[in-house]
Amino acid sequence: MEHSLQHTISLLDRTPAALDALLRDLPETWTLRNEGEDTWSAFDVIGHLIHGERTDWMPKARMVLQFGETETFESFDRWGHVRECQGKSLGQLLDEFARLRSENLDELRALNLRQGDLELRGRHPALGIVTLSELLATWAVHDLTHLHQISRVMAHQYREAVGPWNGSLGVLRCVGHGSR
Amino acid sequence: MEHSLQHTISLLDRTPAALDALLRDLPETWTLRNEGEDTWSAFDVIGHLIHGERTDWMPKARMVLQFGETETFESFDRWGHVRECQGKSLGQLLDEFARLRSENLDELRALNLRQGDLELRGRHPALGIVTLSELLATWAVHDLTHLHQISRVMAHQYREAVGPWNGSLGVLRCVGHGSR
Repeated sequence: MEHSLQHTISLLDRTPAALDALLRDLPETWTLRNEGEDTWSAFDVIGHLIHGERTDWMPKARMVLQFGETETFESFDRWGHVRECQGKSLGQLLDEFARLRSENLDELRALNLRQGDLELRGRHPALGIVTLSELLATWAVHDLTHLHQISRVMAHQYREAVGPWNGSLGVLRCVGHGSR
Repeated sequence: MEHSLQHTISLLDRTPAALDALLRDLPETWTLRNEGEDTWSAFDVIGHLIHGERTDWMPKARMVLQFGETETFESFDRWGHVRECQGKSLGQLLDEFARLRSENLDELRALNLRQGDLELRGRHPALGIVTLSELLATWAVHDLTHLHQISRVMAHQYREAVGPWNGSLGVLRCVGHGSR
């Protein structure tokens, strides 16, 4: 399946409401527990998504449009969510994620990107040359990677509780993939 | 984390709305495509969840309460969703899942189960003796296993579109776990 900007926006547009419906007011045993040292809880993941909205996706898209390959993207701080989360409740984080995502999609739609624009190239510090199309597709799959992670982190909390079913539930056999 | 009936119900209660927010009116390229022959699309998964509401979770819970270990659960038909899905739109399936889940949770709450009830035992055709507590915890983790699967199936559609990012997105490195 080729990249479609419309399909990407459709998905990006739904993620905040899906996470809100899943997580808001859930008992904290589901949302604040992680998979062990140096791993993330669902709460941490929402902070990470907020940090991405502020510093990752649209800032990189703007760089491609403005500088092309001549400037290299800044490295993304994978622990930037710690600051985003400080002193906030999960409800506040969900609200903030929804607001930032909505603003970013408004900006993306207003760019009126055409096929030629999507082929514009930028420079990633580790991956080298990437296109705007690949960046936007990655934004959508990044949402899915964290939905995948949240379902796994939550399931982990019931690893013992399911008893003999633990061998037949796929999510409990997922070992994670670079902690994601 | 031990099983808590209240935490299980909190999660089971949210899944229909989360899947609705994620999937309703999404382009069909996200919801009808699968990972290849004999695998499921997001649409198929909702049909499977409906089939579980009708034939799997509460029927098994009733059997434990009524017969204990003296009767064996019927085997669940993993392809039962084919009938559930026939001639229906994704919107209709999402509505049906929400309605059935809500009815089942009403019934579960009305049982007023106490700690002693949760320790009651039933007989699974493959796993042997299981407790009511394990059955209910598995119902919740089964939701999460399919959320995990849906995120992976959808991400798969953009495997090529993300270009050089495909190595750094965990969900694209997930090989599935018994197709779940």
